[in-house]
Amino acid sequence: MATKVGNYTISMDTGPSIISYAAVGSKKEAQGPIGHRFDAINEDSFFGQKTWELAEGQMQKVAADKALEKACLAPGEVSFLFAGDLLNQISASHYGLRELGIPFMGLYGACSTMSQGLILAAMMVEGGIANNAMAVTSSHFCTAERQYRFPLEYGGQRPPTAQWTATASGAVIVGQSDMPPFVRSVCVGSITDKNIKDVNNMGAAMAPAAALTLTRFFKDTQTNPDNYDAVFTGDLGAVGSSLLCSLVESEGYRLDGKHVDCGLMLFDRDKQNVDAGGSGCGCAAAVLCCCILPDLCEGKINDVLFMATGALMSPTSIQQGQNIPGIAHLVHLSTKPSGRPGGGSAN
Amino acid sequence: MATKVGNYTISMDTGPSIISYAAVGSKKEAQGPIGHRFDAINEDSFFGQKTWELAEGQMQKVAADKALEKACLAPGEVSFLFAGDLLNQISASHYGLRELGIPFMGLYGACSTMSQGLILAAMMVEGGIANNAMAVTSSHFCTAERQYRFPLEYGGQRPPTAQWTATASGAVIVGQSDMPPFVRSVCVGSITDKNIKDVNNMGAAMAPAAALTLTRFFKDTQTNPDNYDAVFTGDLGAVGSSLLCSLVESEGYRLDGKHVDCGLMLFDRDKQNVDAGGSGCGCAAAVLCCCILPDLCEGKINDVLFMATGALMSPTSIQQGQNIPGIAHLVHLSTKPSGRPGGGSAN
Repeated sequence: MATKVGNYTISMDTGPSIISYAAVGSKKEAQGPIGHRFDAINEDSFFGQKTWELAEGQMQKVAADKALEKACLAPGEVSFLFAGDLLNQISASHYGLRELGIPFMGLYGACSTMSQGLILAAMMVEGGIANNAMAVTSSHFCTAERQYRFPLEYGGQRPPTAQWTATASGAVIVGQSDMPPFVRSVCVGSITDKNIKDVNNMGAAMAPAAALTLTRFFKDTQTNPDNYDAVFTGDLGAVGSSLLCSLVESEGYRLDGKHVDCGLMLFDRDKQNVDAGGSGCGCAAAVLCCCILPDLCEGKINDVLFMATGALMSPTSIQQGQNIPGIAHLVHLSTKPSGRPGGGSAN
Repeated sequence: MATKVGNYTISMDTGPSIISYAAVGSKKEAQGPIGHRFDAINEDSFFGQKTWELAEGQMQKVAADKALEKACLAPGEVSFLFAGDLLNQISASHYGLRELGIPFMGLYGACSTMSQGLILAAMMVEGGIANNAMAVTSSHFCTAERQYRFPLEYGGQRPPTAQWTATASGAVIVGQSDMPPFVRSVCVGSITDKNIKDVNNMGAAMAPAAALTLTRFFKDTQTNPDNYDAVFTGDLGAVGSSLLCSLVESEGYRLDGKHVDCGLMLFDRDKQNVDAGGSGCGCAAAVLCCCILPDLCEGKINDVLFMATGALMSPTSIQQGQNIPGIAHLVHLSTKPSGRPGGGSAN
């Protein structure tokens, strides 16, 4: 049974377990610092499909299939599938995952989608509503560029605050198990709007949302960064990461040595020409599934906060001069189940 | 605690209650057969905003505010807000509802969104994760036409199978209460793809998904149409409704006299030039909030199935020659709480 802790945090008292996960990427991701840790890489970014949009869906399918295979589960043994992506009408998820036949709930949380899906999957298991639930998301450089920015052939210039959309996907299955890692608590974010309008500076648009969710969680649980091995954000990039640290410091929490951004882990900024770092739903999802969760399984880290962040504008809202609202959802992942000593959470 | 019934149905054993709801519409909706039952009508479809996209968001805000007001709840007393719409990146929900500050989860289920949001809100209450949770959605004729079809100024012709996107919004709050109506059980749908490609015949694309979810539910619960006062579908329209009846009849269930489509309730097809009927996320949501839920509260109906249906294509997927997958999520609403005699459900 879940318990509300403070105003916004939900503690998972039975501790849903992450029983399987898989990460899929493409050529540029394979060339990055963590490229060797992906479950599957497709070099040409088409994944055997005839359009990039279908390729993005196929990437989700490969990630979902790998996660099912690693858990020795058939699709029919998964009660719910939560998925979404950056495409209009989340079409990568709909087309890519339709064959699985799993009862499906589509999400749109921009780059926060993996946190959102993971939270919902964990809540279903915690609430006794599902034995197993899966969360899947993706992003694709080529589909995102032409939908959000310019046709690739146009060769639009990128300012240094811009981020590089990862061609990657992650799939996570949550279930009931005694094996770590466990979802210990979650904090669902509120939409935050600090009047940021620069569509080439998503990090700045998302950092206030990340700061809000993180400080709410610390206050609710009466913990601080020292209680955790690391605080992972989704894809704030270099600009947003430094803003986040300043914002939470003004609330009395120092993230020095604790904060790591998935967008800065996925690519080598010095060598890979990605400007302020990686981004896209697939960025945080893939880093979660090829680094954070394996490191938790191996006991290299024991208590971490995973907080994917999303910028909630649309090309239409930007053309109409609107702000870029942001959102961030937090998941506390631990090798220790609830109710045992030594957990990072105070409750 | 929720219980799985059969393969796909979740029975809500503590019976989350729908404690408040509100419906908002515009001029054409006000002129329809149920126009007098809306909570609020804005005649000019701009809802005081300078763009139709912001107007759609404002419509959601008015519906959410009305529902909160009727329940005597402040936004801070609602644990989660599930919302989505038809716009790219569900921007109506993000911009319209950002001021509420309620922890937010964005959904994309096309016209099935109200069922999806209502199911998630009910699961949160049933699972002990929230005291109160809200589901909101909308559609707007002018935003949908220019995004999915043509600029309004172009004056594109409509075939008789086409449906008319409702300019409407609905908001529902689920909580813990002894007062009806109750969410008794739910059935989350799977993505269904029957090779339909005609974007002017959404009813045909969604009917197979509706038939799949409905027959799964009847089999799981060992009930049939006779156990319910009515089976409401979201917006199959005239063409999709007749297809649904044929499809479920081939599975041995006769819907005669039981099936009602929200898309056929909202407008008068003889007088309002809406071709095959109303559609859009706001269609099923508004009919739920201004007819179905009030009629349950007044005891005019006691056991109904509410099943909003969604067509999951995007303009890009259609341009690329892809099929139109569909989805349908079912909610069993009853005036009788779980565990009391006389309920429509067999369990």
